[in-house]
Amino acid sequence: MSKNLRLIVLAIFVAASSFGQDRERADRRIEFPDVPGYLTLKCDLHQHTVFSDGAVWPDIRVQEAVRDGLDAISLTEHLEYQPHQDDIPHPDRNRSYHLALHNALEHDLLIIHGSEITRDMPPGHANAIFIQDANPMLHDDALEAFREARRQGAFIFWNHPNWTAQAPDGIARLSEMHRQLIADDLLDGIEVVNETTMSEEAFQIAVDHDLTIMGTSDIHGLVDWMFEVPEGGHRPVTLVFAKERTHESIREALFAGRTVAWFRNDLVGKAELLQPLLEASIRVVGAAYQENTTVAIVTIDNVSDASFVLLNEGEHSFHEHNDLVTLEAHTITELAVKTKTWAPELELHFRVLNALTAPRAHPTITLTVAIE
Amino acid sequence: MSKNLRLIVLAIFVAASSFGQDRERADRRIEFPDVPGYLTLKCDLHQHTVFSDGAVWPDIRVQEAVRDGLDAISLTEHLEYQPHQDDIPHPDRNRSYHLALHNALEHDLLIIHGSEITRDMPPGHANAIFIQDANPMLHDDALEAFREARRQGAFIFWNHPNWTAQAPDGIARLSEMHRQLIADDLLDGIEVVNETTMSEEAFQIAVDHDLTIMGTSDIHGLVDWMFEVPEGGHRPVTLVFAKERTHESIREALFAGRTVAWFRNDLVGKAELLQPLLEASIRVVGAAYQENTTVAIVTIDNVSDASFVLLNEGEHSFHEHNDLVTLEAHTITELAVKTKTWAPELELHFRVLNALTAPRAHPTITLTVAIE
Amino acid sequence: MSKNLRLIVLAIFVAASSFGQDRERADRRIEFPDVPGYLTLKCDLHQHTVFSDGAVWPDIRVQEAVRDGLDAISLTEHLEYQPHQDDIPHPDRNRSYHLALHNALEHDLLIIHGSEITRDMPPGHANAIFIQDANPMLHDDALEAFREARRQGAFIFWNHPNWTAQAPDGIARLSEMHRQLIADDLLDGIEVVNETTMSEEAFQIAVDHDLTIMGTSDIHGLVDWMFEVPEGGHRPVTLVFAKERTHESIREALFAGRTVAWFRNDLVGKAELLQPLLEASIRVVGAAYQENTTVAIVTIDNVSDASFVLLNEGEHSFHEHNDLVTLEAHTITELAVKTKTWAPELELHFRVLNALTAPRAHPTITLTVAIE
Amino acid sequence: MSKNLRLIVLAIFVAASSFGQDRERADRRIEFPDVPGYLTLKCDLHQHTVFSDGAVWPDIRVQEAVRDGLDAISLTEHLEYQPHQDDIPHPDRNRSYHLALHNALEHDLLIIHGSEITRDMPPGHANAIFIQDANPMLHDDALEAFREARRQGAFIFWNHPNWTAQAPDGIARLSEMHRQLIADDLLDGIEVVNETTMSEEAFQIAVDHDLTIMGTSDIHGLVDWMFEVPEGGHRPVTLVFAKERTHESIREALFAGRTVAWFRNDLVGKAELLQPLLEASIRVVGAAYQENTTVAIVTIDNVSDASFVLLNEGEHSFHEHNDLVTLEAHTITELAVKTKTWAPELELHFRVLNALTAPRAHPTITLTVAIE
Repeated sequence: MSKNLRLIVLAIFVAASSFGQDRERADRRIEFPDVPGYLTLKCDLHQHTVFSDGAVWPDIRVQEAVRDGLDAISLTEHLEYQPHQDDIPHPDRNRSYHLALHNALEHDLLIIHGSEITRDMPPGHANAIFIQDANPMLHDDALEAFREARRQGAFIFWNHPNWTAQAPDGIARLSEMHRQLIADDLLDGIEVVNETTMSEEAFQIAVDHDLTIMGTSDIHGLVDWMFEVPEGGHRPVTLVFAKERTHESIREALFAGRTVAWFRNDLVGKAELLQPLLEASIRVVGAAYQENTTVAIVTIDNVSDASFVLLNEGEHSFHEHNDLVTLEAHTITELAVKTKTWAPELELHFRVLNALTAPRAHPTITLTVAIE
Repeated sequence: MSKNLRLIVLAIFVAASSFGQDRERADRRIEFPDVPGYLTLKCDLHQHTVFSDGAVWPDIRVQEAVRDGLDAISLTEHLEYQPHQDDIPHPDRNRSYHLALHNALEHDLLIIHGSEITRDMPPGHANAIFIQDANPMLHDDALEAFREARRQGAFIFWNHPNWTAQAPDGIARLSEMHRQLIADDLLDGIEVVNETTMSEEAFQIAVDHDLTIMGTSDIHGLVDWMFEVPEGGHRPVTLVFAKERTHESIREALFAGRTVAWFRNDLVGKAELLQPLLEASIRVVGAAYQENTTVAIVTIDNVSDASFVLLNEGEHSFHEHNDLVTLEAHTITELAVKTKTWAPELELHFRVLNALTAPRAHPTITLTVAIE
Repeated sequence: MSKNLRLIVLAIFVAASSFGQDRERADRRIEFPDVPGYLTLKCDLHQHTVFSDGAVWPDIRVQEAVRDGLDAISLTEHLEYQPHQDDIPHPDRNRSYHLALHNALEHDLLIIHGSEITRDMPPGHANAIFIQDANPMLHDDALEAFREARRQGAFIFWNHPNWTAQAPDGIARLSEMHRQLIADDLLDGIEVVNETTMSEEAFQIAVDHDLTIMGTSDIHGLVDWMFEVPEGGHRPVTLVFAKERTHESIREALFAGRTVAWFRNDLVGKAELLQPLLEASIRVVGAAYQENTTVAIVTIDNVSDASFVLLNEGEHSFHEHNDLVTLEAHTITELAVKTKTWAPELELHFRVLNALTAPRAHPTITLTVAIE
Repeated sequence: MSKNLRLIVLAIFVAASSFGQDRERADRRIEFPDVPGYLTLKCDLHQHTVFSDGAVWPDIRVQEAVRDGLDAISLTEHLEYQPHQDDIPHPDRNRSYHLALHNALEHDLLIIHGSEITRDMPPGHANAIFIQDANPMLHDDALEAFREARRQGAFIFWNHPNWTAQAPDGIARLSEMHRQLIADDLLDGIEVVNETTMSEEAFQIAVDHDLTIMGTSDIHGLVDWMFEVPEGGHRPVTLVFAKERTHESIREALFAGRTVAWFRNDLVGKAELLQPLLEASIRVVGAAYQENTTVAIVTIDNVSDASFVLLNEGEHSFHEHNDLVTLEAHTITELAVKTKTWAPELELHFRVLNALTAPRAHPTITLTVAIE
């Protein structure tokens, strides 16, 4: 009876997921499951509006975020770069934040107060978020801006260290000044992902110096156009593993380094954070032997936006797949596993190629399957 | 001038390919490029009609093949299994072939005379193609059927050695009888791919015993339904590398072992055959440095039906990709390569994960790129 | 409270229907609602298999029908035209029926015993369905075939009277022989729709002589190919308004003339049958005034496969539409109606252009709307 | 020979158009053909940015227009309504125009200088375009604003006369003041289409008083979101029939009343302008008799964005259609016409239901077809 019920529920899942197989998402909301002990919050903490060099009023950023199903955003206007100043002479660098706060009132979206310290390299650009007041961060001395941010309790991260305008070879490198910032506890994170770019070198710096991994859109124009959302694309976000859906919890998680960057189809983060995210995303929902065979049909549900690209590293071979298996986003996949002898349980081992725990290092996942 | 022309042509390619980015193929024809010295012929050499246990008249098989852009098919009716015999008492086992031959007259499709020797395991089922007359192959003694096929000059391959009806664990295994067939030169090929299944063990047998690798649809019902063609699926085929588009050339190529099986998104074949196919499919069509940087934009055209799943094993990191890069089928991809110093040429090295030269063994490809 | 619930249910409908807005149907099943007093049964009562000049075994016809969500089919092999006779010498003209009956055992599909009397014009071709035995209908004298069908209690209809092979101008015309058949009560229906064709002249004959309106696929090859099902097409069917989902009920309904033909996007039938079908298909599910205006938002759900093309003939003009309004299939449409003064109720009057009660005659529909 | 060439060209057209059959347009550019003597220019002459109550910087309006393939736009900021004034205290009402002018430098897009006179009803809102300077139009007396616009040579049109905020029943009505404006030659056009609304009453006013018919987006947020562009929607535009693609020519055409509004799938305009547009859009590209019949296959190419909904009012009936025929946008349709006797030429007469020459009045089109 309960088995029948399970089959029915499964059938509904399969039917529902087949709707979702459209490459162009019916729903553009970014979706990843929570992990044990934490909520998985979708955050885009580097954005611009007309109040620095962006092209939209803050309300559009709020609406984009709501459409994308984000939990938190920060409008990080350039402190020192104000190309619209002739038209918007507003001296208050917090104005964008206050407008967004107002626009977000009717939505379930957290607005995080932030600002971008905008300097030549070094140190290049850096975002300070969870600030109290952007205005005192305006300083001739770049270091003073960092110190003021720290005084305000801000979380500070290095923006696009791979930006070719400041690093013509696109290679993120620590300068002496950056080493000093880290040594002085003035740098907490680094963008491994910025807009349409990803940096293996920035990733290595994050690993080596225990900086929080950040992925941001750095959007200036429209999210839909830049990231081709109607064609199935999405903006990069930082998945933040927070105890609660509050400002304070996000801040705590960022300082604790509990993030994974979501970029194109890749998940970039520390092994201990990726592992539970993979396990929450990839769920074995059933398994049964095909009649009169020792071929077990294992039903796997991928409840995340990532299409997982798996390479079989286990002992069993598959009946209907080679060793490369893709679990499409929000889709149920049936895997026919040849167990050779009847067994109540089997283990599957995969390398997850679209997840990275370090440059070119991919985690493994083990699925333990109970067979009916 | 010629550079402009190239850019225009490229732009047209890009525009055209963007039409093709639809997951549901505008055109269901199976397309792979020719390789140096050989035509790449798309062949499905294991099929059934109402003249054994299939559900359609031979003309439907011809039309399906034409729609799929195949070069050659064989209707391999079961010699010994004739469930429609009450209705179709025709004693001539060549009837299906003759009807298809007639139906194919108005199409550019080769019909290869074949038949399926249908026995219990061992030896299980085997196809003999390029036969002269199926009738004398009907024999009490299975071995006599193989010998008669050989006398007629047939190419003989073992069908679905992983079939769970004959191998309940789905594992392809050589019996003594199979070893004898090989020793007696009565077995030339083996289905590594049959219908919706793929067998690592059959693949290993092919490698160990130098049997020609075969991939077939073994279709009984409708190709469109079984392989979900409207949703973007395709039937498995054997890509045959033949000197000419003739019966004799295909036969020669099969005996010489020049095949790659195309199954789901995987290409399965010997390294020396996969290599030129990958090189013909993946074409560098341009490369130029981004202004004021040492980031080279390399433009790669994938002119095949396979979406290549590549893992970066070269020295360079990418500006807009992680180490996992997918070249979508019939699509141009731009890869931003960080060369660090300016250079007139660069080399890219990838592991090709959706190609297999042996079970779980993936070939590499090197792209040598001249930069403008 | 109940109003909120209604809004939630409505929201779910809207969400669900938006999935269905894909031109390529997620589900190919033909769907029309039942009407007061009758079930709306989807029937395709003119089809062929290998047992006359078709290209598939009967099981494919059963599977196509199941995929199309049909209630009843008839395999109406040509009595006198047997091009596969060399291969299928079966003398029993009922064989196709018996095989289909067997194949349909595991499905919820009614198989109606039928046969096609296949003569030169006049009388051309005619189907006799609900027969007992096809064999005695084989007669030198065509009229005898009709009489035998009548003796067996068959429902008899004239096939494709517009067929250019028998009527080179494509114009359906009654010959003396047809008039005699009608006078002698040997002709009950007429195909107004056959395969890809529709005949205004056949429609007029049906109206003038009170013949039952039939629409059939007359499929010989594959339904999916002929009617481009994957691209959103469908085979023509006869919607039969039957008291129960039984052979006897369908037969009764056919003799009583209770049918509508469904062809492309058109519904063709008598006014008294179209009217309830339109009313069951087009449902007003809510209406409310926009705040501070006399513009009423009327929510209309189209629960049928037809996209209704409506021309406004009522007194009210619309705020967001011209007078041509299309209610897409399986979609909810919101219509902003300018009532000028506040009123608890309003009436909408439309001409339904994709429905026909006679050649070039379109019925009207009145929607009475209670406004909250 | 030339016949073969024509067939090849036709085949290419058919192939190309089949790509375009996707409901979601591959290309969002609005496309209508030129008409004899005039270019058909796509203009959206009522839009807003952050410089009044819009949500984007002027550059986004330029980019939207370029993506939509427009020829000309006007950013018509509210003169008297400046909700962003705290942030943008700019006293120059021309600022938005100048920024757009700068942004458009690298595009082939005409920027027309305009402004919105924003008053209570009457007179409500009105746009003055082709002005020299918006600032002097700021006046306590609304009439003075109109007079100043006229002095500057502006084309003046009444905005959204059906706006429920100013006309709670959504009915456009001329007040005494409007009649006076018309009498004093201070009103040249009227929005029959504004944003998502269409007004039969405004249409009647345009007809009665010979005002130029305008259709505008009145966009404040994002065009893509408001008009669901990714799902196949488009913004309303005014098609302007101009002698050249210049400011002066557009101005001349507007004063001469040479416009058609394009809204949803409807074309709204005077008969003498719609007629040539329909004729340029709907092209007979070939016709030939089916072998051994008097059924002529007429091939019709619709080269416009409108899907024409045609009702057959000619003498001939069709072989594969009822009397309602839809010519899908950018698609070739084959119409099988039953001519009864062989003839070298035939005429088709249709009512065009998605075109309007007055409220609920639809033009006819005659296609004269030469048959090979």
